[in-house]
Amino acid sequence: MANRDVSYFALGGGGFIGTNLCRRLAGRGGRVRAFSRHFAFPDAMAGVDLVTGDFRNHDALASAIEGFDIVYHLVHATPPQPANVDIGGDITNNVLPSLALFDICRRLGVKRIVFLSSGGTVYGRAAVVPTPETAPTEPIAAYGISKLMIEKYLVLHEHLHRMDYRVLRVTNPFGAFQTTIKNQGIIAALIARGLAGEPIEIWGDGSAVRDFIYVGDVIDALELASRDQSEFRIFNIGRGEGRNIREIAGTVERLLGRKLQIVWKDARAIDLPVSVVSNARAKEVLGWTPKTTLDEGLRQTIAWWQGRALSEDSSTR
Amino acid sequence: MANRDVSYFALGGGGFIGTNLCRRLAGRGGRVRAFSRHFAFPDAMAGVDLVTGDFRNHDALASAIEGFDIVYHLVHATPPQPANVDIGGDITNNVLPSLALFDICRRLGVKRIVFLSSGGTVYGRAAVVPTPETAPTEPIAAYGISKLMIEKYLVLHEHLHRMDYRVLRVTNPFGAFQTTIKNQGIIAALIARGLAGEPIEIWGDGSAVRDFIYVGDVIDALELASRDQSEFRIFNIGRGEGRNIREIAGTVERLLGRKLQIVWKDARAIDLPVSVVSNARAKEVLGWTPKTTLDEGLRQTIAWWQGRALSEDSSTR
Repeated sequence: MANRDVSYFALGGGGFIGTNLCRRLAGRGGRVRAFSRHFAFPDAMAGVDLVTGDFRNHDALASAIEGFDIVYHLVHATPPQPANVDIGGDITNNVLPSLALFDICRRLGVKRIVFLSSGGTVYGRAAVVPTPETAPTEPIAAYGISKLMIEKYLVLHEHLHRMDYRVLRVTNPFGAFQTTIKNQGIIAALIARGLAGEPIEIWGDGSAVRDFIYVGDVIDALELASRDQSEFRIFNIGRGEGRNIREIAGTVERLLGRKLQIVWKDARAIDLPVSVVSNARAKEVLGWTPKTTLDEGLRQTIAWWQGRALSEDSSTR
Repeated sequence: MANRDVSYFALGGGGFIGTNLCRRLAGRGGRVRAFSRHFAFPDAMAGVDLVTGDFRNHDALASAIEGFDIVYHLVHATPPQPANVDIGGDITNNVLPSLALFDICRRLGVKRIVFLSSGGTVYGRAAVVPTPETAPTEPIAAYGISKLMIEKYLVLHEHLHRMDYRVLRVTNPFGAFQTTIKNQGIIAALIARGLAGEPIEIWGDGSAVRDFIYVGDVIDALELASRDQSEFRIFNIGRGEGRNIREIAGTVERLLGRKLQIVWKDARAIDLPVSVVSNARAKEVLGWTPKTTLDEGLRQTIAWWQGRALSEDSSTR
């Protein structure tokens, strides 16, 4: 599927999506370099050239990118909740370095930038659900605003400098290599705490509906986006189906075969009641389709956590 | 029309719109303070408390704002063309200080922020003309993106902190106190150069269509926006009618009674072929209407320039 003559650079390649993407691309025999502040799973990235660095360091970034064709921009230094508290910091640490990245890519003749945006935050309280790419973008979280602005600056760079890009508005991804460190993935938290027999804190009453998508399907979309020749630039990537948090917790409980200890906390201002995207454009234009059912994705994720627990047990022996 | 019990603070009060607004508010007997880096016409601002300062200086800004009810945010430190060349600087000098302004207003209990946005850039190449507020916002200039970002952060501040605000997306304003210094107002340039018998450089072939609005009508809208109690937040302010640049030049020529020497230059990437907004919402909700015809507005603007030339002649005598 991947073209061996094309080289791939993954900014934020040490994170959840990045690790999965690099493994896929390297597995296809492509030239792949990952650039990240931190690599949580370096042993899992055989065949990937790992460069440790901060994307706010322009010189380091430029020398690492030189010679690569496709740049995946997967990094966002500020998680959603802290971004609302320090909005200026969110801009300084994410929007401004993204602009520097675009300058670098332009100077070095990068062929395409594929940007990981946020299907769960850029639309805000959408009037139409599942929400298409053409819906109004009214984020109610700073994280969504900065993602949206980076999208707008890509549009501008195409207009001013013929920069080639694609944007994937990914919903709520889950799967292997998603850890609980940044407290972002609710499925990772449910499984990790569930396996450990620990209580899980969840904001809200469990009625919030999300569009969970297995990471393998997201990686399919990232590969397709690097090659798309359509006139479209922005694609929603989600299953197009909502599940509420109680339902997800119940499914994890069933698959784990044990009762979860959930502590429900007050909902946060940034939490939307419903977030589900329409994936019709990605299906039609990219030829993408989410292949993994929620049950199957959850099973694979649980297997990954169980394998991890085993290997940690053996390594501490 | 203005409430004497309400106090008004105009950030960027020394500029074109600011000078006109402060004169109007002070003329109604209100308490008015203008804060600006520079006051081009201090003698024209009787009854207005003038504070010279930079809006990036948070402490100076906070002490100046303390005790005021309505804050007009009229400042944008970077003109459209330079913003595209230094996008990061545009964000640093405009978006980040706007966030600091919002924090200050929140801390000081400011009752409402009225933000001057840009009807001519936030929509980009609109599919629907005249363009309503609900149209997609796809700017093709950094200036429009940063204006849009500031709008989005106002939405967020209402959501997170119940901040009260209104946004006016004003098209192409013209009138008294618009100078040619920043090279922004094409009508000011046509009149000033025309009166001086100097050549005028215009980007493009003159076919670009713009929605010119007389500044007196914009000030009407700024007053109404400070009092609006509707559920709407964003209002287009324009005549809702387009004129191409050749037509405007021809009208100025006719009213001046002399031939203009126009030098047509290549169009710039940021120049849209057409920019005309729908003003239906402002008419219906604010009860606003543009009262000044283009001819009448141009006559008044020419009279202002002629008066200025006379007073400059006498002052150099």
